[in-house]
Amino acid sequence: MFTYFHFAADETLTKAFLNSGATAIAYETIMLSDTSLPLLIPMSEVAGRMSVQEGAKYLEKLHGGRGKLLGGVPGVEPARVTILGGGIVGTNAAHIASGLGATVNILDVNLNRLRYLDEIMPKNVRTIYSNQYNIQELLPRTDLLIGAVLIPGAKAPKLVSKEMLGKMQEGSVVVDVAVDQGGCIETCKPTTHENPIYQVDGIIHYCVANMPGAVPFTSTTALTNATNPYIQKLANQGILNALKLDEYLLKGLNIYQGQITHPGVSDAFNLKYTSPGKAIA
Amino acid sequence: MFTYFHFAADETLTKAFLNSGATAIAYETIMLSDTSLPLLIPMSEVAGRMSVQEGAKYLEKLHGGRGKLLGGVPGVEPARVTILGGGIVGTNAAHIASGLGATVNILDVNLNRLRYLDEIMPKNVRTIYSNQYNIQELLPRTDLLIGAVLIPGAKAPKLVSKEMLGKMQEGSVVVDVAVDQGGCIETCKPTTHENPIYQVDGIIHYCVANMPGAVPFTSTTALTNATNPYIQKLANQGILNALKLDEYLLKGLNIYQGQITHPGVSDAFNLKYTSPGKAIA
Amino acid sequence: MFTYFHFAADETLTKAFLNSGATAIAYETIMLSDTSLPLLIPMSEVAGRMSVQEGAKYLEKLHGGRGKLLGGVPGVEPARVTILGGGIVGTNAAHIASGLGATVNILDVNLNRLRYLDEIMPKNVRTIYSNQYNIQELLPRTDLLIGAVLIPGAKAPKLVSKEMLGKMQEGSVVVDVAVDQGGCIETCKPTTHENPIYQVDGIIHYCVANMPGAVPFTSTTALTNATNPYIQKLANQGILNALKLDEYLLKGLNIYQGQITHPGVSDAFNLKYTSPGKAIA
Amino acid sequence: MFTYFHFAADETLTKAFLNSGATAIAYETIMLSDTSLPLLIPMSEVAGRMSVQEGAKYLEKLHGGRGKLLGGVPGVEPARVTILGGGIVGTNAAHIASGLGATVNILDVNLNRLRYLDEIMPKNVRTIYSNQYNIQELLPRTDLLIGAVLIPGAKAPKLVSKEMLGKMQEGSVVVDVAVDQGGCIETCKPTTHENPIYQVDGIIHYCVANMPGAVPFTSTTALTNATNPYIQKLANQGILNALKLDEYLLKGLNIYQGQITHPGVSDAFNLKYTSPGKAIA
Amino acid sequence: MFTYFHFAADETLTKAFLNSGATAIAYETIMLSDTSLPLLIPMSEVAGRMSVQEGAKYLEKLHGGRGKLLGGVPGVEPARVTILGGGIVGTNAAHIASGLGATVNILDVNLNRLRYLDEIMPKNVRTIYSNQYNIQELLPRTDLLIGAVLIPGAKAPKLVSKEMLGKMQEGSVVVDVAVDQGGCIETCKPTTHENPIYQVDGIIHYCVANMPGAVPFTSTTALTNATNPYIQKLANQGILNALKLDEYLLKGLNIYQGQITHPGVSDAFNLKYTSPGKAIA
Amino acid sequence: MFTYFHFAADETLTKAFLNSGATAIAYETIMLSDTSLPLLIPMSEVAGRMSVQEGAKYLEKLHGGRGKLLGGVPGVEPARVTILGGGIVGTNAAHIASGLGATVNILDVNLNRLRYLDEIMPKNVRTIYSNQYNIQELLPRTDLLIGAVLIPGAKAPKLVSKEMLGKMQEGSVVVDVAVDQGGCIETCKPTTHENPIYQVDGIIHYCVANMPGAVPFTSTTALTNATNPYIQKLANQGILNALKLDEYLLKGLNIYQGQITHPGVSDAFNLKYTSPGKAIA
Repeated sequence: MFTYFHFAADETLTKAFLNSGATAIAYETIMLSDTSLPLLIPMSEVAGRMSVQEGAKYLEKLHGGRGKLLGGVPGVEPARVTILGGGIVGTNAAHIASGLGATVNILDVNLNRLRYLDEIMPKNVRTIYSNQYNIQELLPRTDLLIGAVLIPGAKAPKLVSKEMLGKMQEGSVVVDVAVDQGGCIETCKPTTHENPIYQVDGIIHYCVANMPGAVPFTSTTALTNATNPYIQKLANQGILNALKLDEYLLKGLNIYQGQITHPGVSDAFNLKYTSPGKAIA
Repeated sequence: MFTYFHFAADETLTKAFLNSGATAIAYETIMLSDTSLPLLIPMSEVAGRMSVQEGAKYLEKLHGGRGKLLGGVPGVEPARVTILGGGIVGTNAAHIASGLGATVNILDVNLNRLRYLDEIMPKNVRTIYSNQYNIQELLPRTDLLIGAVLIPGAKAPKLVSKEMLGKMQEGSVVVDVAVDQGGCIETCKPTTHENPIYQVDGIIHYCVANMPGAVPFTSTTALTNATNPYIQKLANQGILNALKLDEYLLKGLNIYQGQITHPGVSDAFNLKYTSPGKAIA
Repeated sequence: MFTYFHFAADETLTKAFLNSGATAIAYETIMLSDTSLPLLIPMSEVAGRMSVQEGAKYLEKLHGGRGKLLGGVPGVEPARVTILGGGIVGTNAAHIASGLGATVNILDVNLNRLRYLDEIMPKNVRTIYSNQYNIQELLPRTDLLIGAVLIPGAKAPKLVSKEMLGKMQEGSVVVDVAVDQGGCIETCKPTTHENPIYQVDGIIHYCVANMPGAVPFTSTTALTNATNPYIQKLANQGILNALKLDEYLLKGLNIYQGQITHPGVSDAFNLKYTSPGKAIA
Repeated sequence: MFTYFHFAADETLTKAFLNSGATAIAYETIMLSDTSLPLLIPMSEVAGRMSVQEGAKYLEKLHGGRGKLLGGVPGVEPARVTILGGGIVGTNAAHIASGLGATVNILDVNLNRLRYLDEIMPKNVRTIYSNQYNIQELLPRTDLLIGAVLIPGAKAPKLVSKEMLGKMQEGSVVVDVAVDQGGCIETCKPTTHENPIYQVDGIIHYCVANMPGAVPFTSTTALTNATNPYIQKLANQGILNALKLDEYLLKGLNIYQGQITHPGVSDAFNLKYTSPGKAIA
Repeated sequence: MFTYFHFAADETLTKAFLNSGATAIAYETIMLSDTSLPLLIPMSEVAGRMSVQEGAKYLEKLHGGRGKLLGGVPGVEPARVTILGGGIVGTNAAHIASGLGATVNILDVNLNRLRYLDEIMPKNVRTIYSNQYNIQELLPRTDLLIGAVLIPGAKAPKLVSKEMLGKMQEGSVVVDVAVDQGGCIETCKPTTHENPIYQVDGIIHYCVANMPGAVPFTSTTALTNATNPYIQKLANQGILNALKLDEYLLKGLNIYQGQITHPGVSDAFNLKYTSPGKAIA
Repeated sequence: MFTYFHFAADETLTKAFLNSGATAIAYETIMLSDTSLPLLIPMSEVAGRMSVQEGAKYLEKLHGGRGKLLGGVPGVEPARVTILGGGIVGTNAAHIASGLGATVNILDVNLNRLRYLDEIMPKNVRTIYSNQYNIQELLPRTDLLIGAVLIPGAKAPKLVSKEMLGKMQEGSVVVDVAVDQGGCIETCKPTTHENPIYQVDGIIHYCVANMPGAVPFTSTTALTNATNPYIQKLANQGILNALKLDEYLLKGLNIYQGQITHPGVSDAFNLKYTSPGKAIA
């Protein structure tokens, strides 16, 4: 199964790695000049697409859901999906929800992004400005709520409080793709593929932290496509040269010759931080 | 301007025509074996498409409407259009409403028709079974209501009562395309292009009886296309032969050699009826 | 939860019903002149749409599947779905599979049906003539195989043998919607929502016999839409008159005044059969 | 009703405001680094979408138009819409015209913009390079001409002279969305919602300067979405700090503590100008 | 290469066959109750799709064409394709022309067919009633004219005379798919794949009689799909039984035990005709 | 016919031009700051669209191709088109291949480009990351291979070797649009419109170097649209001023007052190079 880990979450590992003298470059910390994280995008695409499939599944009565088919059938109104966030996760979720035939609302505060989505999305996707008023107005007529707000390097903002969730009908489903950054829905906490759901006030919560792990064939290929240019640089130029020539790759350097070169890791264990530029100089 | 008239509505005309000895074949009474009226279909197509354009116009604040743009804009939810009837009028209305970007509900009791519409309509059109429960549930979230239920040769059923209309929000708009057959919305009565609208309980009513008259270029061409095969038969075979050879054309015969051959006309003025078959025998 | 039962499957029930003197009209035996079963269509629509959602779910690695996301992501080829049968089940399955972004093959022996599907389906759906050669050729590049061949009143033909299934890759998924009529894939036998899947030679089989039971909100509404005209007739005309006036409803009569009026039921228990027409005469 | 006013158009108001000591920030003068005017975009979107609805209306015979239905009907060729300018107004107009079923030509001199439009527009929209030859060639087969050329902070160029208009057929309609900047069609001068149209040489001119005012529900919401981030800054940081921290907001400052800080206003009344940066220093 | 022949075109062959005592069933004379010819449909589909590909090719300057790319490019208006006939050939041609990005007109006298095409065709396809006025009006702005009018068992009507063709611009292209039934364009006469084109008054004529012969992989598969049910009947039931049990297959019987059983063949050589029913009795 | 020439390819011409004292600005060397070549884009668009039309043509049996119709017909699987490169050529090729009904794979190493294509392309276009593994895996199931990899100012990389081509089936077709830069398929060498194809190991190669020359009507118009702004500058500002004011136009300067100002030309004939900036100073 596809997995990845973070130094900051495991002190023993980190210290062992430091002693080994090996060089560690972390996918998830490679960052471009526009603060985008190119090696996380594929996972966001997979998670966004999966979030709606999973939501559809847990709307089934068997799992406590409302027993609504996302796309309805001729003569029966389809379910309504509300997606918080129009970035990569939200856009991919909207494509799938639209393809399944649901009536879809996608919310964002970035009007230029909404304009683009309005131009390229199928007609059952409606773009709506994201604010408390609109979210509250939509919740009573939302069968599936997707949390898709991720702010690189920061906690996701809490857009939906436990109280607001009370406006949703019993048996509705919440999927929070941002859950491993704290989630943008207050009642969400990480779950696993083995025990993916729990209920709060009759609302099903699906909050698997590592969704893409369920489809490793697709996820691994997607990730490999994204990492490939960096792998080629490392192989062709050597690690040191590659780091010197590519400032974005350098941002991914976490440990180099026994030094911690990422503040997230040094902060976590109160160890000494060396800037990556200085470490490889 | 494109116009047509009915004998049953004008006694003087009818009697003058009877005395003239001329033969009268009425477009609107030519009927195929499946009871469809081939020479009325083009007018239903024009009226269906116009109904949404007119509805969009009268949603403007200036005319007392809610001031909503049918398609919304990025970030602002579009208006909601509910269409009663999935026949020719309703289908054409749905195409235009969908094209303008509205969220569209189309209702009918014929499930096979809804299945077909579900297959060919853009994704912002939702098919919903027509019953009192569904209509009542939709009215509060309907900005534009189109009445498109026509039953050939019969009064349109009253699907929306004055009381039900109270569920709509002030400034909403009702367009009843069936108004010249009595209308399927209780509060609708025929209006003219000169005074097209009136209000009932704050709801704008647009009920022009002869909508296609506003676009004679299109209406006349469409009608000519449909009448053309009959005109050719009359010209090539002579009136008498054409009537003998085409039983559907014969159904259109209203007056022949001083005899009334359509029960609608004879009933209207309490005159003697002769069956068309006997008249031309 | 939505449920229904068949007399032919329960002798005790049948005899008790006979003794009660009550009248039994069975939804699933109402048949139109073209042998279509109008009250089963909604369930076929729901099952067709669900079949792909379930298939997508069980392609996940966690359940033994290949770990492929049905729609892929940019840069990664989507999964391939092959649907046997282009009727109501197959058409609804194809819409969902296409909406999820898969590459879809839909097979049928009815070329006119394939022509219609070719005209209305999105471009990632390819119509293919159904024969052994084509099925065998498609199996090795099929990730999800949907059995959607139902012949009213007859056992589904076995289109895919256990041996042919060997051509599919390990971790592929089979969903047989025809399973309650014997299934069109040899290795399929009915399962339940509680234990929905089993494996044969590494291929996941999802064969829940009553799929629509998982989404009762949608299924019940859809079924009610279809039964509504019959309920209205029974209520307005009385049972006896309704049966006399509607020959299709009469075909649904199973038990009338202690007599068995459907050959399926009388055959099952070797009891006397009375034709429905004679019973109500 | 949605309204806005400009200081430069009202000397009394301006002087009263100066004396009041209040701070005035004008929506329409907030400008981003790429010279786009973020608070005017929503109004351009509304106006673009409305322009085609209004044009369709005035093509009706009743108003002097050609009596053509924009989308035609099966068997009758649709009307042809030519849109000058592929920016926000033109793109929104094209979406609506396409949705109504017209054959649409959209012209621009920016080939990269035409390439993008070619990729995202429905197939009845054709992109055409904007030059005198092409415009002249299109006019005789244009039923509805939309002027959508706006150059921020400058007069719209006159693309269609009165003489060129002579190539259009009588009863054609011209809508100039750029009319409040002088218009890109020579014969256009601003009109009002009360008297929206006039004729020149048999061509209907619809030139309402404040189109979005007709749909205040949509316009106000759209505008609020766009202004919201600025309002939040003003509320959270205080006016002075907000102006200091956001150079784009500062461009919107018109009057500050009795000083005129926008050259457009000072020029209009020959009053003293203070640069906004200096005023708030 | 895919080929077929007709008895009526070869007396020697016919007489040799008669003497052989063999049974001859001709694909092209199998006819259903609605007079459709099921085994000719696949060839019409192939020919319809190919007709536009070939037309696009011969619009190239090298072959004498106007040098226009069918779909244009951004900024350059696409070519215009006019298709005479909305049956199988015309519909398939329209799909391809639309897919290539052309502006497409499809003409037919059957309004119900035009209504269906209006519902399922992409938006760059316009349905127009077929009459002399409309054809003449379209010719000057037609770059590629497709003749697609076939009347089963009858000569195609001449819709475009040599004189009318004079309205087309030099270098335009005509493809007449109906050419082997005489063609619906006066100047068309059959050509071969080896010498596919000729010019009349500067108009390129592509009139290959056996277009599907160029793509035998597709044509043979398509034809086999259509013939398969008949082959199975012949194999399973024996020739005689199959002919007795299937009245449509019987219509395909041309020669049986030395008797000519199709009037087209007997008429051609002035030989005795025996009705197929009598021959197999 | 549309033609263009390069100094670097003709020494006599170059020297004559030098002596004439005239100023030469070459379309193909005008370059924007992002290294795009604005005056070559239109030709790439035309070539991309034509490449699939030509490929479809040469798949015909007559020319040695597989005899497959690109779009198939209902019941027969369409052909498969693989496009190497998702830039302007590849995107235009994909639109046409998709429109013809093929199953299309488009490959690129730029994931952001693939993401955009995934959003705007029809559903029968699949985006696939470009690497040797994927190309090799696709070749056996590719009927038409389009080479569309162009790197401005550099030789196209050889993505497909002669050996790899052996994986394609006999009668498949290769079109290399990059052939005038060396081609991205090893076996490709330039051909002419007069002798457009040749075979290598049973694979048809279409490698016309100047494809747009076949459709001069479209190509010339497209090119004129792109050159127009530069022509206007030259006409309005005079050559010298225009070159001084527009650094991109200056990059197009090849010869000025007897001096060679483009390194490509001076290198070709071992003549003296003067920088354009210095030449016009």
